[in-house]
Amino acid sequence: MPQDRTDTRPGERQVDLDLADDAALRFIGRIRTPFLTRADCPRQGRLDGPECRLELNPVWEAALDGIEAYSRLEVIYWLHQSRRDLVTQSPRHDGRTVGTFALRSPVRPNPIGTARVHLVRRERAALVVRGLDCLDGTPLLDIKPDRCDFTPKAGEKAADLA
Amino acid sequence: MPQDRTDTRPGERQVDLDLADDAALRFIGRIRTPFLTRADCPRQGRLDGPECRLELNPVWEAALDGIEAYSRLEVIYWLHQSRRDLVTQSPRHDGRTVGTFALRSPVRPNPIGTARVHLVRRERAALVVRGLDCLDGTPLLDIKPDRCDFTPKAGEKAADLA
Repeated sequence: MPQDRTDTRPGERQVDLDLADDAALRFIGRIRTPFLTRADCPRQGRLDGPECRLELNPVWEAALDGIEAYSRLEVIYWLHQSRRDLVTQSPRHDGRTVGTFALRSPVRPNPIGTARVHLVRRERAALVVRGLDCLDGTPLLDIKPDRCDFTPKAGEKAADLA
Repeated sequence: MPQDRTDTRPGERQVDLDLADDAALRFIGRIRTPFLTRADCPRQGRLDGPECRLELNPVWEAALDGIEAYSRLEVIYWLHQSRRDLVTQSPRHDGRTVGTFALRSPVRPNPIGTARVHLVRRERAALVVRGLDCLDGTPLLDIKPDRCDFTPKAGEKAADLA
């Protein structure tokens, strides 16, 4: 994992941590974007941004069935180039810091990215979408209907009516 | 991990998978909710739902600094009781199925939950929030300002102006 732990800006604070091993992830595919370097990545994706592809391992193809019913999806991915040990960060390199959880920086204890995207079309085990801001080759973790679009398919239960 | 792989409903399809080991997670704390069983959990959280607590490991306390500036947060957590091998699921138990990625079910290859919550207050290394729907004791993975509320702290870069 290419995590450069020496690149700490003035004021930033890091912690020493044991190896992460509380749970394990399985990459379900890769994300193809036009962003080949960090400088290419917009800070936040836009629904009118360029087309990107979510390319799934074919074992998951049937898991996309029914997804065309949604125009907005939530995409979850692994920010594989991010260090994970910063408690406070200095986004403007000026010595002023803010806590990691008060930022949407890719540098976090669990570098999980989430994006809301527009579904353009499905191609077998791949989806073409707009709205991503991540590097080409980013490992894909999950796809789900955006919560604003989604009405639960299961019947109501008592806890929903409280 | 209490994953019951025998509980497959008519029409659902599972796959055999190797052990997940593409990346590892570090739980940053636990979520305390009033929902003690799956039946207690609403299908989706509501911003006017009951108060819940995000209790962080104290090593991350300073990582919350500055978070009071946001009233809406994105919370990411690990659905630790979910099985991970279903490709299609039958939410209504009626033999009709839909792909896992067309559902917001907790059963997914990487059982990561995301919620948009209202920040009520901070208490040192804990946050009191409304809007969760997960079980009491759910492992916490990440907290970030909701993307709708958040303006990047770092300066603009060329990729933002494209």
